Parts: sequence; structure tokens; C-alpha cells
Amino acid sequence: MTAPSPSAAAALLPALKFDRDGFVAAVAQQHDTGEVLMLAWMNREAVEETLASGRVTYFSRSRQTLWRKGESSGQAQKLVELRVDCDGDTLLLLVDQTGAACHTGTRSCFFRAVRGGALERIAEPIADPKTLYGAEA
Amino acid sequence: MTAPSPSAAAALLPALKFDRDGFVAAVAQQHDTGEVLMLAWMNREAVEETLASGRVTYFSRSRQTLWRKGESSGQAQKLVELRVDCDGDTLLLLVDQTGAACHTGTRSCFFRAVRGGALERIAEPIADPKTLYGAEA
Repeated sequence: MTAPSPSAAAALLPALKFDRDGFVAAVAQQHDTGEVLMLAWMNREAVEETLASGRVTYFSRSRQTLWRKGESSGQAQKLVELRVDCDGDTLLLLVDQTGAACHTGTRSCFFRAVRGGALERIAEPIADPKTLYGAEA
Repeated sequence: MTAPSPSAAAALLPALKFDRDGFVAAVAQQHDTGEVLMLAWMNREAVEETLASGRVTYFSRSRQTLWRKGESSGQAQKLVELRVDCDGDTLLLLVDQTGAACHTGTRSCFFRAVRGGALERIAEPIADPKTLYGAEA
């Protein structure tokens, strides 16, 4: 496990290429099972806070504010390792997800699949979204 | 394995929310190992072609053209299953990757990780990028 530290941000940030809106994409993957949980966005501040705290913080583009994952829902992501892609515009976050990553209450946001020419639900909610995610994007 | 078909596109496309430039993000994951290989972009035509052909086609934003993964390099991605996230702006592609997904010749584009306060290379190329990817973005 990576020990979160401010120096990690100093090492990482020069390798990142934020887009015209100041974001990099971040893919969250459960570290031990390999399940891809979600994709969200980070600005520079979210990257710094994530590395410093060891808890994943995104930037909510809909709410235009830092989004400390799980702050309101309890469904937090503990950072296990942060990886960066070849061109520096996408992060892969290996995380330990508490409960449901998705605001709909499913473990993963990718709960629909194209099968047999139709779009099928392949996973059911594991938590009640009304309870967990009332205020979280 | 999903049988690729034109009807799959008809089922999927209404669920997608393309961004202001006409793209959805697409995360490619090796279907059997769970390794996250890369993130790229698809427009509507790329989605349709991927589902119809069973071979992953992206849209190259740098070259502004369809990017049939592996067409010039041989490092193709066979589609195993296509999943879509809760808000329809990100796809998860379960693929069978031939060789190296990354244009640098590494299996995955995520070959750097923050470890011990530094950005470290964690995977070496498995193919010579000069040979494989001379013309591919």
C-alpha cells in the first residue's frame, strides 16, 4: 500500500495533463477483485487531497465542488495505489471501496450490459440510494 | 460472450449521453484477468462499428478519425462484453487484448504508479513501439 504523502503529489503533478476544464479522468478499481467501480473526474486540488489524505476525493462537475467520496453516504474509497496512464490524462485508482460505489446503490456504476441485442441490468443495488446518497452526486 | 449485432447498437444508443464534443469515455479491461488496459473515446459511429464488428473501434481525438484499434499495429481488442455506467457517459469494454494495449508497447497504459513518494515505472514494454505503433495514435 502506498503511504499517502504530500511529496507524492509533487512527484505526480508534473506528469499530469489536465484538460481544458482542468480535469483528469479517474477510473476507480477495487484493488483485490479487479472490479471496475466508476469513472469520475479530478482537478489538481482533488489529486492533492486524495494523495495527502489517502481517501479518494473527486471534483463533481455537476456541483462544481470537491466531492469527498463517501462524505455524506459513508461509501468511501480508501486509496491503495494511484497509477497514471501514458499520456497523463487518466488516473487508475486502486481503492478499497466501502459498500456501493454508485449513487444508485449498486456496487459498480457499470451495472448494465449489452447482451443478446438488449441492454440488461446485470447487478442489483446493495444499498438503498435514498438512504445513502440523498445529497451526493 | 456477447454476439455482436446491429440491434445491440439500437438498444444501447438511447442510454448514452455523448458529451459536447460527441464522445463517451471507454475504459478497456482485459476480460479474464481484470487488468485495466487503457481509456479512450468513442463517438456514435465508433460505438456502432464496435458492436457490429466485435472489434473495438475508438475515435482518435488527436487524429480526428475513427481508430480501429490494432489496424496498423496488430494489437487489436476483441469485444467480449460492453457495459455502460449509471449516467450513460462511460463505457466499460471487456476485451480480449492482443499483445500491448499501449502505444508505448506496454500491456497497459497504466504503467506508472505513485510509490514511496515517487512516480515509478511498474511495467516494461512487451513490444517495440517503433515496430508496432509507428502510425497509430
